[in-house]
Amino acid sequence: MTPLALTMGEPAGIGFEITAAAWSALRGGSTPFFLIGDIRGIRGIPVEEITSPDQAAPAFAEALPVLHRPLPSPITPCHIQPDHAAGVIAAIEDAVRFAKAGSASAVVTNPIQKASLYAAGFPHPGHTEFLGEIAGTGVPAVMMLASPMLRVVPITVHEPLSQAIARLTPELIITHARIAHAALIRDFGIAQPRLAIAGLNPHAGEAGTLGREEIDIIAPAIAALRAEDIDARGPMPPDTMFTAKARPGYDAAICLYHDQALIPIKALDMDGGVNVTLGLSIVRTSPDHGTALDIAGTGRADASSLIAAIRLAAEIAHRRNA
Amino acid sequence: MTPLALTMGEPAGIGFEITAAAWSALRGGSTPFFLIGDIRGIRGIPVEEITSPDQAAPAFAEALPVLHRPLPSPITPCHIQPDHAAGVIAAIEDAVRFAKAGSASAVVTNPIQKASLYAAGFPHPGHTEFLGEIAGTGVPAVMMLASPMLRVVPITVHEPLSQAIARLTPELIITHARIAHAALIRDFGIAQPRLAIAGLNPHAGEAGTLGREEIDIIAPAIAALRAEDIDARGPMPPDTMFTAKARPGYDAAICLYHDQALIPIKALDMDGGVNVTLGLSIVRTSPDHGTALDIAGTGRADASSLIAAIRLAAEIAHRRNA
Repeated sequence: MTPLALTMGEPAGIGFEITAAAWSALRGGSTPFFLIGDIRGIRGIPVEEITSPDQAAPAFAEALPVLHRPLPSPITPCHIQPDHAAGVIAAIEDAVRFAKAGSASAVVTNPIQKASLYAAGFPHPGHTEFLGEIAGTGVPAVMMLASPMLRVVPITVHEPLSQAIARLTPELIITHARIAHAALIRDFGIAQPRLAIAGLNPHAGEAGTLGREEIDIIAPAIAALRAEDIDARGPMPPDTMFTAKARPGYDAAICLYHDQALIPIKALDMDGGVNVTLGLSIVRTSPDHGTALDIAGTGRADASSLIAAIRLAAEIAHRRNA
Repeated sequence: MTPLALTMGEPAGIGFEITAAAWSALRGGSTPFFLIGDIRGIRGIPVEEITSPDQAAPAFAEALPVLHRPLPSPITPCHIQPDHAAGVIAAIEDAVRFAKAGSASAVVTNPIQKASLYAAGFPHPGHTEFLGEIAGTGVPAVMMLASPMLRVVPITVHEPLSQAIARLTPELIITHARIAHAALIRDFGIAQPRLAIAGLNPHAGEAGTLGREEIDIIAPAIAALRAEDIDARGPMPPDTMFTAKARPGYDAAICLYHDQALIPIKALDMDGGVNVTLGLSIVRTSPDHGTALDIAGTGRADASSLIAAIRLAAEIAHRRNA
């Protein structure tokens, strides 16, 4: 059984704790995984040091397999060490290498502390863009947040809202919708995906009286997608497209800005949401939260989102190999 | 017992049906109400024509009291008649007059079809602004959406998103937050209201790296509110402030644009949300949906939001008179 590779993420955050909790929850299941990182970060559960991914599955039921990558200074919850940054990045690179080689079936990343990596010279805005660099396929790496209640794909992410609006083009919508469409078929097993394309303005602009982007940018993108036989609907009024009645009408919502996507999914399901990167050569998921430095080491961290990320990564990997 | 006054709203919409359903659900309770509108619009329940509000309470248990205001042409579900617009507006004016005089304890409005009123020369963007004109108190009429899970106050509403962003000022935030604060005390019985002030940009701008509005506009507004002893918190990251964990931490969220407020409340509770107008001399609520012309007359309309609006109006009226 090919195992999943988990990265340690920020050593001072909750990554080690939630990984230990996820192992305790999933050790009896059919999805073995191993951690890449400093073995000293894991406490309270049995660990087994391994030297290659193929040793993970046989060990998994009895201990968390760890591919030990020692950090140069001690791990203290809540206290970020600048000299840990290189190890954090190397764990991601290792995981991707194993996934590309087929010795890991997928990569599940624990949260990183971006500011700390930037300080060490990391030139990428975040995980998603870094993975686009080292595991790209010629299309943009696209973020999807998936929960049992809703899937959303924000087409702009970490930039000021006014800039995200100014940058909207039909091409940006079309590119992201195509990648989401392909992923829903390949990775989620949906034969004929239905995409809901969000409007930007209140009530999707009310025929231009509350804004022109729906007419000038979004509707032309939808027309182009439909001409490619992609079932794209919209522009949908943003406030009613996420209601309990509307959600069963589509398989993913293509959202125009960060919070249009993240507000509804987090309001509905803070703990069950999983971040999936679409458009990569490998399978990658991650929990839908940050490093939670404020509670690291207190035992209060909730592993639900990491567990959901592991399960979804296993499902997608299984579907790709079936 | 002073009754509530309900307006008929758009005669071709679902207003009559949901009013009849609300009467059936609430006739046994302690909150009498009467409808102002054309009595021929109500079907399937007993009606009693009244000529003044004081006749409503004695009749209420056996029939829906209706202050009959005949329309000049027949009512047909789904088909808007231009000559109905004046009667729709007059019903609102009558209701406000009764509330100001104390013969109605509150006004609950059924949804109107704005385009149809505009065509008849109605000069106000909607109900809220019209009520601000005829029942104002020298402060802006402010929309709150209230449900058992969340209360939100959007400080900009029906305008293009880029314009709403350009129009943000500390004063706009402060004015709305003050009105919300006063209403939470007076109308909702919360002695020390806690206000969560939303950020605008992803992650509330991440210290200016993802947008400056939090630093230049929102934080100064919060500081000014706190100097007035208003418990204002923020700027809150918009995507995490509406999670199940975050919501119990405040009594109302002050939101910067229409969908920042309406996406979460409708995703969480499409049917239970109630629109409350703050800053008026009278109590006014309405259901949190439109005229639903597409299903009018089919019997499929859901009266939950109107019922919630009636209940909340009665609660607020009771609290103001206590």
